[in-house]
Amino acid sequence: MAVYTDVAADELAEFLKNYDIGETLSYKGIAEGVENSNFLLHTTAGHFILTLYEKRVAECDLPFFLGLMDHLAKAGISCPTPVRDCEGRMLRELAGRPAALVTFLEGLSLKRPHMEHCLAVGSALARLHIAGMSYTTKRRNALGPAGWPGLFAGFATRADEITPGLAETVMRELDTVIPRWPNDLPAGIVHADLFPDNVFFRGRELSGLIDFYFAANDLLAYDVAICLNAWCFEQDFAFNITKGQALLRGYRSVREISEPEREALPLLARGAALRFLLTRAHDWLHTSEHALVRPHNPLHYLRRLRFHQTVKSAREYGLEIAR
Amino acid sequence: MAVYTDVAADELAEFLKNYDIGETLSYKGIAEGVENSNFLLHTTAGHFILTLYEKRVAECDLPFFLGLMDHLAKAGISCPTPVRDCEGRMLRELAGRPAALVTFLEGLSLKRPHMEHCLAVGSALARLHIAGMSYTTKRRNALGPAGWPGLFAGFATRADEITPGLAETVMRELDTVIPRWPNDLPAGIVHADLFPDNVFFRGRELSGLIDFYFAANDLLAYDVAICLNAWCFEQDFAFNITKGQALLRGYRSVREISEPEREALPLLARGAALRFLLTRAHDWLHTSEHALVRPHNPLHYLRRLRFHQTVKSAREYGLEIAR
Repeated sequence: MAVYTDVAADELAEFLKNYDIGETLSYKGIAEGVENSNFLLHTTAGHFILTLYEKRVAECDLPFFLGLMDHLAKAGISCPTPVRDCEGRMLRELAGRPAALVTFLEGLSLKRPHMEHCLAVGSALARLHIAGMSYTTKRRNALGPAGWPGLFAGFATRADEITPGLAETVMRELDTVIPRWPNDLPAGIVHADLFPDNVFFRGRELSGLIDFYFAANDLLAYDVAICLNAWCFEQDFAFNITKGQALLRGYRSVREISEPEREALPLLARGAALRFLLTRAHDWLHTSEHALVRPHNPLHYLRRLRFHQTVKSAREYGLEIAR
Repeated sequence: MAVYTDVAADELAEFLKNYDIGETLSYKGIAEGVENSNFLLHTTAGHFILTLYEKRVAECDLPFFLGLMDHLAKAGISCPTPVRDCEGRMLRELAGRPAALVTFLEGLSLKRPHMEHCLAVGSALARLHIAGMSYTTKRRNALGPAGWPGLFAGFATRADEITPGLAETVMRELDTVIPRWPNDLPAGIVHADLFPDNVFFRGRELSGLIDFYFAANDLLAYDVAICLNAWCFEQDFAFNITKGQALLRGYRSVREISEPEREALPLLARGAALRFLLTRAHDWLHTSEHALVRPHNPLHYLRRLRFHQTVKSAREYGLEIAR
């Protein structure tokens, strides 16, 4: 939840003169996205989201993100589409910050997705991967395995404040997972943060994907592993294999998972749990009790990690061998 | 800015079954109102605001507020109109909190209103006062003069942390203003918080009034005095008599200001500045540095108060004697 920067009506009016989107009827700061300031804008031409990029998003990455949304939208993926100004630019400045206007997507994000939603998100992820193949701009995934030791170093001495023994567990995981990390699996554009709050539905039908600000070039199967973590665990951290089956079946209905990807899946899922454990632990320890954004509980990912440590084969995630 | 309570899509769907407002297309937590959680809801029937009342609003006052909006809307005032559920009720419960659905108003609130906006807000205030005459439910203004000493007592010992000498100034003001406070002026429903962020415009035209959660029965001229404080000072705290003239002219085009009201205006304006100084000082001292809601600077009202102390007659606010 966030609106860090306030925008005055006259400032907004001045900014919107650069766009051909009609007269402004209303705009509201919305509690969406923890990294940026977002406004829901209603004009005589429709609904839009205006985003002001705050300092947590690197300005040099913005052309990659906006270009990607533009590319995916043109390829038929339902995602926010950057609106170009009268000079054809997707990025401008407002209130001293980089700012972009994107189309508004209808739909609801789900707190407790069902099996059908997992099926839908699996196939949407695969379609995103396919559509991303032809996107030529590149971005390294700063939150991939190479970034994990550095992330951990930022809070290692305080890790046990979260739960005793956490530092030891994380160190052992880094030593286990990183040396075995595959580097020859199919790679391309990954969303890297396709959690339920970033997917909109109307009923069972998936209506759109949002928040591409972690997207990067990385292993496609790692993105699948992130989704297994984000969509297929229950409130009690039990893995729901029915949802896993649905998500993987949805994915494979669009893009097949190769034999090497299948073999790597338990390790990738374990790495994905570790990645979210690391960032959440970091945020947990570096966020004031009264901060604007309440951090997620890192222990939810420790619980997932413990499950993945026991997994021997992708079958345990619901991957069916014979189709 | 606030969204204190999160509402899951299925919880919302269950709640909305009680209303005849079509299928939900989207909803977003919005950064509006410091006291409650607000969601902008889009359904196939239109746009609505869903409010969950947090603990700062007394639950027993809600029927007064909702009834007032309903009454004013029926009397032709453009304000959020409570939507009744299938049983005719304006108030229900959601996520363990009292909750109400109201119509959405288009328009923009202004940070730097011009003279024409002051004219429009003056006449809108008078129309609100007239329309309120026939509203029979009553609510005492807890933030009227009788409430000020108690408010001050809550932070008196820490007042000088804001600025040296503040405690002394406030005590002297309470002793000066309260004994001279008039009790025989025309009274009725007052908005009591008609600041620029609570008034929407489309261009020069006023499109609606919002946030009736301070409304109460009190002196009508006190409401005018609050608006003079809220609309007619510049960034440097200089009183802009052109805006004052416009606001008072707008008001008097609908409801005349009587001779006793005119005489009391400097005292009422001084009291209004004191009232906002008191609540802002209280919030300033009782809000953590990292809180969700950033408090307003109380000293802005000390500056206004200093101006009112020098005012000898309502003419200095721009009140024209001969019409």
